[in-house]
Amino acid sequence: MDIKKDSTKSEKIEDLAKRRGFFNQSSEIYGSLSGLYDYGFLGASLKRKWEALWRKHFLDEDFAFEIETTNIMPEPVFRASGHLENFIDPTTRCKKCGTVHRADHIIEEFLGESFEGLSAEKLTEIIHRHRVKCPKCKGQLEDAATLNMMFPLTIGTGEGTKPYLRPETAQGVYVNFSRAFEQLRKKLPLGLALIGKAYRNEISPRNLLIRQREFTQAELQIFFDPERIGVHERFEQIADYKLRLFTLADKKSNTITEITCKDAAAKLKLPQFYVYHLAKIQKFYLDVLKLPIDKFRFRELSEEERAFYNRIHWDIEINLESLGGFKEIGGLHYRTDHDLKGHGKISGKDMSISIDDRRFIPNVLELSFGVDRNVYALLDLSYHEEGDEKDRRIVLRLPQLLSPFDFALFPLVNKDNIPEKAQEIKKMLKEKGFGIFYDDSGSIGRRYRRMDEIGVAKCITIDHQTLEDSTVTIRDRDTMTQIRVKIDDISSYI
Amino acid sequence: MDIKKDSTKSEKIEDLAKRRGFFNQSSEIYGSLSGLYDYGFLGASLKRKWEALWRKHFLDEDFAFEIETTNIMPEPVFRASGHLENFIDPTTRCKKCGTVHRADHIIEEFLGESFEGLSAEKLTEIIHRHRVKCPKCKGQLEDAATLNMMFPLTIGTGEGTKPYLRPETAQGVYVNFSRAFEQLRKKLPLGLALIGKAYRNEISPRNLLIRQREFTQAELQIFFDPERIGVHERFEQIADYKLRLFTLADKKSNTITEITCKDAAAKLKLPQFYVYHLAKIQKFYLDVLKLPIDKFRFRELSEEERAFYNRIHWDIEINLESLGGFKEIGGLHYRTDHDLKGHGKISGKDMSISIDDRRFIPNVLELSFGVDRNVYALLDLSYHEEGDEKDRRIVLRLPQLLSPFDFALFPLVNKDNIPEKAQEIKKMLKEKGFGIFYDDSGSIGRRYRRMDEIGVAKCITIDHQTLEDSTVTIRDRDTMTQIRVKIDDISSYI
Repeated sequence: MDIKKDSTKSEKIEDLAKRRGFFNQSSEIYGSLSGLYDYGFLGASLKRKWEALWRKHFLDEDFAFEIETTNIMPEPVFRASGHLENFIDPTTRCKKCGTVHRADHIIEEFLGESFEGLSAEKLTEIIHRHRVKCPKCKGQLEDAATLNMMFPLTIGTGEGTKPYLRPETAQGVYVNFSRAFEQLRKKLPLGLALIGKAYRNEISPRNLLIRQREFTQAELQIFFDPERIGVHERFEQIADYKLRLFTLADKKSNTITEITCKDAAAKLKLPQFYVYHLAKIQKFYLDVLKLPIDKFRFRELSEEERAFYNRIHWDIEINLESLGGFKEIGGLHYRTDHDLKGHGKISGKDMSISIDDRRFIPNVLELSFGVDRNVYALLDLSYHEEGDEKDRRIVLRLPQLLSPFDFALFPLVNKDNIPEKAQEIKKMLKEKGFGIFYDDSGSIGRRYRRMDEIGVAKCITIDHQTLEDSTVTIRDRDTMTQIRVKIDDISSYI
Repeated sequence: MDIKKDSTKSEKIEDLAKRRGFFNQSSEIYGSLSGLYDYGFLGASLKRKWEALWRKHFLDEDFAFEIETTNIMPEPVFRASGHLENFIDPTTRCKKCGTVHRADHIIEEFLGESFEGLSAEKLTEIIHRHRVKCPKCKGQLEDAATLNMMFPLTIGTGEGTKPYLRPETAQGVYVNFSRAFEQLRKKLPLGLALIGKAYRNEISPRNLLIRQREFTQAELQIFFDPERIGVHERFEQIADYKLRLFTLADKKSNTITEITCKDAAAKLKLPQFYVYHLAKIQKFYLDVLKLPIDKFRFRELSEEERAFYNRIHWDIEINLESLGGFKEIGGLHYRTDHDLKGHGKISGKDMSISIDDRRFIPNVLELSFGVDRNVYALLDLSYHEEGDEKDRRIVLRLPQLLSPFDFALFPLVNKDNIPEKAQEIKKMLKEKGFGIFYDDSGSIGRRYRRMDEIGVAKCITIDHQTLEDSTVTIRDRDTMTQIRVKIDDISSYI
């Protein structure tokens, strides 16, 4: 199932991204800091379109609302969430050159095996036993230590509490739960969504947009009655829908379990409320974003892999050729009452609610998506090359809904009233709400190629015939065929 | 429905905001940090709608594109921009209680006069001369000192360069200019927009959303040829449009100069390119956001008030009753080549471009908007109270485009197939793209009031008659009149 790692595809994507305006290293004129990326005009558009589709799909429920909370949050938030104590990375410093490495990563590179999640003590033992050396200078390594991955700040004149940049957006929702519950008429389930930045001081950021120090998350936190996790009122609607699961048992055989939602509940003992949202997520990827079905799966995490507070945790994974296989781009986490309970304890505020004469702390189902990872995944999946070295065509086969512009518009020549006609058509299409990219320089062939590699699906050319019979040519990105259509019919080609 | 009796308007807005879900202090269950606010579901919706209208109005130009850049940026960026040296606030510490104050602010409170922009030396002199005391404990104050208002961070293991959270979004655009110019076919003018967070370590944040430590800016940076500042190709379109200016000369008489764009260029010697964008901004406020005309003005800044690199600088101001007068909510800044030149110097990269055989550094016209300030302004302007203590009605007279929902939908009773009919209508309206708030609890009168105070303009009630003749009542927020209309005609009431 895994695709052979194509070591140059990620370089090709990066090249295209920088050249055309999807993304580039942040502040690159200063040599940049690793793990920070800026979005150019095409990347920003792709990201916003993804976010709009996400909102439409996941917030189209009566119980779901979006909020926005600050990136800076005070220390007690992270005492309550456990981040102060547990959000740490193992590091090791080279005795010779002084470089600080992420301990588990360099051991993994050295021994070709994953050691994620091991304690500093265990990693130190492995470093000694296998004589792991500094990958930079081959020097001896110090014992592994831990580093908290949050960014602390000094606020005001630094005399009060020490705040942090949030390492996940979720806590911003949890600290606002009580107020939102009150405002939204004290009903469960209650969904609170947030699209925003999170920050992690990664020791070794890597893989372009995949592991960054500053990144965007889109999350929906659903607060619900834990006694009702076994049911979902609309479960019947998805009972026969087939999920693509990579269970712990599938790991050995490297297969996928295709299983109906009904069976996932009955045979795999997954609660209906959880299964319903697996289906909702899968439909987003297959029906809305139109991913090829074999590129998508949910991966079950083992008990060692998942955070202790996640009772159920499956990652959303997409198979990315440029990164050599399935990569996590989100997850569905049953976080129980861990967070609200923690905030209740540290803040002294009662987080329990009363419904039907029962008093309890709502449980949380978290639908979590790395937005930058999703953007990168879309670029990986849609990037194609055709032809040979002499005549190579790069095509970004983005689905229409994610294409940066609905149409490109080319006046064949810049004279004979053709530009005027093109401007007129542009105005008409803009008024209909279409996004238009106007390009009047270079041969038509070159203009097509420029649009192909940024994913514009339809190019319209205005020529002399247009002036005579009000027709234009529409050229299709994927088939490269051209047809002649009436100006009035253009919009039906979307 | 409980409104505070003798509170000021800003307290009333804050009370409504917290109670209903516009905004509240961030992490308030922990007592919060001052100058940080979270948006509830209504505030987040209002903010997103404002941003969408802003994009539609300002990016509807062939030359304007949106990008997105990181909040974390390396130190040299701020050496180049001047923030490291100049972005400082004057502070003074109380010798008795140790509190650190913003020096100019407490002198202003003490003497009732503005001292913004004075140096620490000057402020120290005033403290001594007027024996200014600590407002908290009446203790003696130390000499004024300065504090850089940026938030520094430690990245990785802290061995490289020290990054900062950006204090303005603009620098993210400037460091990306060369690449974007290349990607967008080397044409001027080139507009690069960015909506994002900025961070300032204010010593005394105040006025709710107005002066925060973390806030959102929406900015359009237009790079242009300085030789063309005197012209704008579409100036004729706005030549007779009347601007509302509060010039330096108007200050004494406290009047407004109403002047056509033509005259602003001819008599006030403002360049056409600048005047065109004054008109564009004013139209956004008066035509799109539909502000009452007398609430809006541009204020000319004196040479002492404006940053040294702004050759022309007018603030966008809105008259906010809750804050006692006109307040800055944005500005139009002719920043010359200050920023690109600075980045060229510090990065060693050539920032000049070549057009028509001339080589020059593009100049920048910055259209800058504080998004949170705009949101607050909209709340201030639309907040109204009617009636007396016994029966007070709060109405948020938001324009339709900014209303959190297009319609509220009420089943008169929760039986007799009325909820089913209501759900059916909801589905139909949602499919037409309308935002719907469904409320089925409490008397209809109370439900109306709940919608009035969050600004929903139209409430639809489904009753027994609906089942018979497919009509509903639509009640108007502002006039409180009710009319009976056919279900099929509902959408025409927007």
